[in-house]
Amino acid sequence: MRRPRTIADLGERGLLRSIRKYLDRPSRELVVGAPDDDAAVWRGDPFVVATTDTMVEGIDFRRAWPGFDFRRLGRRLISINLSDLAAMGAQPRHALISLALPRSTPARDVERLYRGISEQAHRFGTTIAGGDLSATRGPLMATATLIGRITSPQRILRRTGARPGWQIAVTGSLGAAAAGLRLLESGRLPTTRAQRAWVTAQLDPTPQLAAGQALAATLTVGGDISDGLYREVERLTQPARLGATIAIDRLPLADGLRKTQWALAVKDSEDFELICAGPVARMASAERALDRLGVPLTVVGTIEARPGIRLRDGARSVHLEGAGYEHFR
Amino acid sequence: MRRPRTIADLGERGLLRSIRKYLDRPSRELVVGAPDDDAAVWRGDPFVVATTDTMVEGIDFRRAWPGFDFRRLGRRLISINLSDLAAMGAQPRHALISLALPRSTPARDVERLYRGISEQAHRFGTTIAGGDLSATRGPLMATATLIGRITSPQRILRRTGARPGWQIAVTGSLGAAAAGLRLLESGRLPTTRAQRAWVTAQLDPTPQLAAGQALAATLTVGGDISDGLYREVERLTQPARLGATIAIDRLPLADGLRKTQWALAVKDSEDFELICAGPVARMASAERALDRLGVPLTVVGTIEARPGIRLRDGARSVHLEGAGYEHFR
Repeated sequence: MRRPRTIADLGERGLLRSIRKYLDRPSRELVVGAPDDDAAVWRGDPFVVATTDTMVEGIDFRRAWPGFDFRRLGRRLISINLSDLAAMGAQPRHALISLALPRSTPARDVERLYRGISEQAHRFGTTIAGGDLSATRGPLMATATLIGRITSPQRILRRTGARPGWQIAVTGSLGAAAAGLRLLESGRLPTTRAQRAWVTAQLDPTPQLAAGQALAATLTVGGDISDGLYREVERLTQPARLGATIAIDRLPLADGLRKTQWALAVKDSEDFELICAGPVARMASAERALDRLGVPLTVVGTIEARPGIRLRDGARSVHLEGAGYEHFR
Repeated sequence: MRRPRTIADLGERGLLRSIRKYLDRPSRELVVGAPDDDAAVWRGDPFVVATTDTMVEGIDFRRAWPGFDFRRLGRRLISINLSDLAAMGAQPRHALISLALPRSTPARDVERLYRGISEQAHRFGTTIAGGDLSATRGPLMATATLIGRITSPQRILRRTGARPGWQIAVTGSLGAAAAGLRLLESGRLPTTRAQRAWVTAQLDPTPQLAAGQALAATLTVGGDISDGLYREVERLTQPARLGATIAIDRLPLADGLRKTQWALAVKDSEDFELICAGPVARMASAERALDRLGVPLTVVGTIEARPGIRLRDGARSVHLEGAGYEHFR
């Protein structure tokens, strides 16, 4: 078998030529697109929302995963960043991509990565405005910076401002991404439809952009739960010395998960879903707005004056070990 | 000796607490600052200029370099990105930082890195609006995305538009960064004042922001020469099937470099200086504008209709092997 052509064979200029078609050409909005100049230029917006997120090989993904594919990895890079914009209720506009690549990387893998980046960005109305390519002697690393807009700084979801008595709700279903990760790490291929959906939730999640914008029109408090539902409820309550109860029997578990697997939806969940909090009446109107988008919104708990996160299964109190993902540990 | 406290000891939350003072608080301009929310929000500008650049340990820097320091590395991360904004004539506004850190990284190194990031950003009127922290099993990697503004899309420097007969000029002096890199790689400490300046040019360059804005007010074609003067002259000429002659006897070599070391200023130069091209009369007025800023502008060549880059030493034609840095090779 012939050795695939690597990026060392191709060189930076050759690589740039091969991915050039995925970088957006100038338009009315994108005045200067990379890589023709030192930076990209675009028409601005009155209020800008910006985020950056990195995926590291060996930490966030492994090429050895069954069914791993660089195109899906590219889509995921955009999705995890779009989810941060969704969490604020913003509309995405432009993306900048920075890749650090081992010299042995097959050139076609980089092209597939960029193809995924470009197709997911375009699906959500985002241009690939620029980027950067570096060599590395370590694992492959991909960073995206996403720039979006909001119409007014009042119309966003923030982590601050939750009040005791408010309901806590989540979009979509929970636990699929964590279940998918376990399957991938076990090296087994998904066999059922539910298992395939778990793997997709991990490898190729869909950011809840429309839902985020709809929530921001009705509510003021929210975020995404990609670091885990438990961790995010902490973030909404701890700084204000508030607490919360989560009703684990009400969690919208992903298809195929058993009731006893609720921890997947609370602790390890890397689900790119949104959380929000608000008074009962407003939550009902948010539910109706999301229903029109075909996105379920499920009340899963309550903000309380007493600090600490309590988990309840019906009337019974339950305990959770080491909740929420923390890097470096 | 006690083992220094690592980021694995500290955990993500502890690390975030230790660098929090370097992240900008909300202000009139920065409506929402990280890390309190999923994304940063700022007041926009009519025309936005954006760039991203990464530094990889083992490729762009080594901790083993004599005098290496994380604070200067942080400053360099901001400077190399600011140089891309300078190359367009933009004014910087906001930065987003993404770090991938080995678990064994001493916590105080990350703090010093962020201290350098913050001080260089603030020196040039830039907020640290947000960022991301990841773990890695590979080398340390730092990415910054810089967002700036221009007053009009007409008032920028582009790589396209050079015409035969135009002069080519560079800001500052050349060759110091490449000379500094050789010294660092040899493991020797700088002993003379000139050598110390070379090392500073490599480890802690100063972006030519004011010069870039002044050039963009007078000229239309320019860029930065951090990939080498030769490579950048190619970029200004090749796409339009033009060529150029560079007069190596006119290069403004950095203090302490001998005339025979001109290749350091042409090929390997990682100098964060600007290049520009324009008609003679305009170039003279650009020179006067930069003179008022205390930045020398030196004419070093001419754009020509004949394709190819020619190097001349007085009347003599000279040859250069393998010019211009390319990643992955």
